[in-house]
Amino acid sequence: MLKNNNHFKEMDKEQLTLKLIEAQYALLNSAGRNNAKSLVVLVSGIELAGKGEAVKQLREWVDPRYLGVKADPPNIFSEKECFWQPYVRSIPAEGQIQILFGNWYSDLLATVSHVSRPLTDSVYDAYIEQMRAFEHDLKNNNCEVIKIWFDLSWKTLQKRLDEIDASQQRWQKLHGLDWRNKKQYDMLQNLRQRFTDDWIVIDCEDEGIRNQQFAQHILHALKQLPPHKMKVIGSSWQQTAVPEQLRQPAAEKMDKAEYKAQLKELTAKVARKLRKDNRNILILFEGMDAAGKGGAIKRIVKQLDPREYEIYSIGVPEKYELRRPYLWRFWTRLKGNGAISIFDRTWYGRVLVERIEGYAKPVEWQRAYDEINRFEENLALNQTLVIKFWLAISPDEQAKRFKSREEMPHKRFKITPDDWRNRSHWDEYLDSAADMLELTHTDAAPWNVIATDDKYTARIQVLNTILERLKAD
Amino acid sequence: MLKNNNHFKEMDKEQLTLKLIEAQYALLNSAGRNNAKSLVVLVSGIELAGKGEAVKQLREWVDPRYLGVKADPPNIFSEKECFWQPYVRSIPAEGQIQILFGNWYSDLLATVSHVSRPLTDSVYDAYIEQMRAFEHDLKNNNCEVIKIWFDLSWKTLQKRLDEIDASQQRWQKLHGLDWRNKKQYDMLQNLRQRFTDDWIVIDCEDEGIRNQQFAQHILHALKQLPPHKMKVIGSSWQQTAVPEQLRQPAAEKMDKAEYKAQLKELTAKVARKLRKDNRNILILFEGMDAAGKGGAIKRIVKQLDPREYEIYSIGVPEKYELRRPYLWRFWTRLKGNGAISIFDRTWYGRVLVERIEGYAKPVEWQRAYDEINRFEENLALNQTLVIKFWLAISPDEQAKRFKSREEMPHKRFKITPDDWRNRSHWDEYLDSAADMLELTHTDAAPWNVIATDDKYTARIQVLNTILERLKAD
Repeated sequence: MLKNNNHFKEMDKEQLTLKLIEAQYALLNSAGRNNAKSLVVLVSGIELAGKGEAVKQLREWVDPRYLGVKADPPNIFSEKECFWQPYVRSIPAEGQIQILFGNWYSDLLATVSHVSRPLTDSVYDAYIEQMRAFEHDLKNNNCEVIKIWFDLSWKTLQKRLDEIDASQQRWQKLHGLDWRNKKQYDMLQNLRQRFTDDWIVIDCEDEGIRNQQFAQHILHALKQLPPHKMKVIGSSWQQTAVPEQLRQPAAEKMDKAEYKAQLKELTAKVARKLRKDNRNILILFEGMDAAGKGGAIKRIVKQLDPREYEIYSIGVPEKYELRRPYLWRFWTRLKGNGAISIFDRTWYGRVLVERIEGYAKPVEWQRAYDEINRFEENLALNQTLVIKFWLAISPDEQAKRFKSREEMPHKRFKITPDDWRNRSHWDEYLDSAADMLELTHTDAAPWNVIATDDKYTARIQVLNTILERLKAD
Repeated sequence: MLKNNNHFKEMDKEQLTLKLIEAQYALLNSAGRNNAKSLVVLVSGIELAGKGEAVKQLREWVDPRYLGVKADPPNIFSEKECFWQPYVRSIPAEGQIQILFGNWYSDLLATVSHVSRPLTDSVYDAYIEQMRAFEHDLKNNNCEVIKIWFDLSWKTLQKRLDEIDASQQRWQKLHGLDWRNKKQYDMLQNLRQRFTDDWIVIDCEDEGIRNQQFAQHILHALKQLPPHKMKVIGSSWQQTAVPEQLRQPAAEKMDKAEYKAQLKELTAKVARKLRKDNRNILILFEGMDAAGKGGAIKRIVKQLDPREYEIYSIGVPEKYELRRPYLWRFWTRLKGNGAISIFDRTWYGRVLVERIEGYAKPVEWQRAYDEINRFEENLALNQTLVIKFWLAISPDEQAKRFKSREEMPHKRFKITPDDWRNRSHWDEYLDSAADMLELTHTDAAPWNVIATDDKYTARIQVLNTILERLKAD
């Protein structure tokens, strides 16, 4: 990758725009195909280096209908929001280019400069590591990322500040940092050097070539888009043995009167504790069909008002969701405002149904465990309590419930040919669940396996587990 | 429509859920077809009447994957945001049902109760009128709306407040109003009676039948969905005569040196004034291909930074956008935070290309003028300055520009077979533009017709027009 100005050759402008448009249309035509890609361009840099000019110029050299530009003043990090949350709606669909002029790195710099309690070095570096991991996951999911830093010397910056008019200085002052302060300039240069070693750095002393360099780097990235990863690297897949609690879930019966009494007390307690907790709460359910996910959710919210929580029933993704990384439809649903979110099926579909039905290639689902762990760790780091349930049912009990549903006209819609097909994959689901429980049972987000052959016991256990997690953390 | 409890007959629960699911699937299957519909259910009412219980129960009686529930605490109206803006992302796609538990009416009641400067009666009633007009437009665009008020007497409300536990009272207090205050209760009842005459009112004294009533009303609505409007009512279409300024735009030439001098001064002034203005600014361009929309936009933003504005280049709608009212993709793009938004093509596509190419039926495009006027009036009422440009070019000048583009390899992408086809519809475009200028030139959002055969003159006029509008308002 071009990393400095040394190898730069100015191109004929018409040639450049022609090539850019060709590359843009090639990208656009990749949508829906085997080589489908998208491109995110992170743009940051010193004020007055000319980022804005370069972005405006690029917009004229390409077809602007297929170039997204998100250019917002920096966000100071919010405690309950992951760094990527303000940007995920702008993650482009296949075929699209998105400029993030203002991005998680500019937010990091703004946060360092503006918060009263400064970030420690190790927190700062941990952010950079998380950001790189996030970008790595984007790339693996066919959304290429390039990062461009517009650099400018202290001397030239001061000269340019002298020359701009008053209204622009106000804008400078308002949304940027104090660029007249040498100490702050030096601090920023030091800070950014801790993350820019995998960036393209454009030296913006020469305004004439800056726009060309920017455009050429994007052209270069478009022409060098890596192919999709097709092969798993490393040894063959180590299947986790299916634990007994999945294969043969316990089935102690709870007495109905006992259940009713406990239920009333527990649902009240859960409502009270959930209300008092200021964190984001994320409760999620996976499990075989008819294992009782809906019934458990119903009891969690029993004494809550619908304005206090949101339930997401996750089905087949929409087409526009399929054209983005598989986590995208979850990234965009999550809220960072202390919300209570309950998911009936989740992102774990990637390593369950998508693995089993072949919607995800082996390289994709095998990578997904780490991606999901990083995703949940990001959430946990940002004051989100993640409570995960696998509801384990025995095949006999499932058959009984299927049949009883089929006999009730008003429940028949719950049983579809898909359910019977899933049932015929019983062992594959157990294998997939075993891998999932082994590989995504983390400190940040541990799994809870609940035996559900007896519905009463299961529901009481779910409520007790939630109470324990709310207390423990 | 059922409006009270008199005609209520309790249904067998299994029958009810069966019928609900059948109706839900019929709606789902309408998506993409000639009778496609969606349903929005507005839910409001007295606290503790049991809205939440009814919504939770409904979720269990239907297939929850196709029932959206948006249930947020009320928003106090913000000065720069239309009442529908917090909700438009939840307007359902064809085939879907969306409950808005918390909606523009609850926001209106919350605003009346919480703002320091109370709304006058006439402002209050004007809001109701705007809300009804908005719902009317939703319905015409195949998104049916029903409104359900959960009512409760003062006496029963007090009794229920006595019975609930402390944590729920906190929730009550936090998000609701003071329901222990008889004066406030009476005021709210009076206020809501000014809008509930087209609502279904459920008397919630009897908790046993409340959930059934709610579900039955929704079932009723699903079974009575009105057919799409196919025929224009009233007299035949009165075509506006094409004004001379469209047919033969002026073509005075501006001297290049003069242009350069004026341009520099005007772009600086425009940047300064736009920065100082705290309103939302919305500048939009329509006009024949090659009339210079892109060039004009480039000059408007010349001395602005991309973080200060957003440009929307509007192309063909995506599939998920086509499954909602045509204004939806614009509703969801607009921001109510003092943003500068520039549109290269707009919602006027409805009465231009969609009218001409037959994508919109006559009944649809003929209705659209009023819908657009209401939309822009809503924006203007909420501190949005709407500046509309029609760029008028002569056919000869367009042909010249097309040819010159075709001769430049790097501009050739701008000319597609579509452009030549549009050109062959020249007179229809003039007719449509004439109607549009006649029917949507409003006080809230007047049109500016700019002759663009001379690019210099046109750009200077665009900038001067913007300056005048910024000054005048």
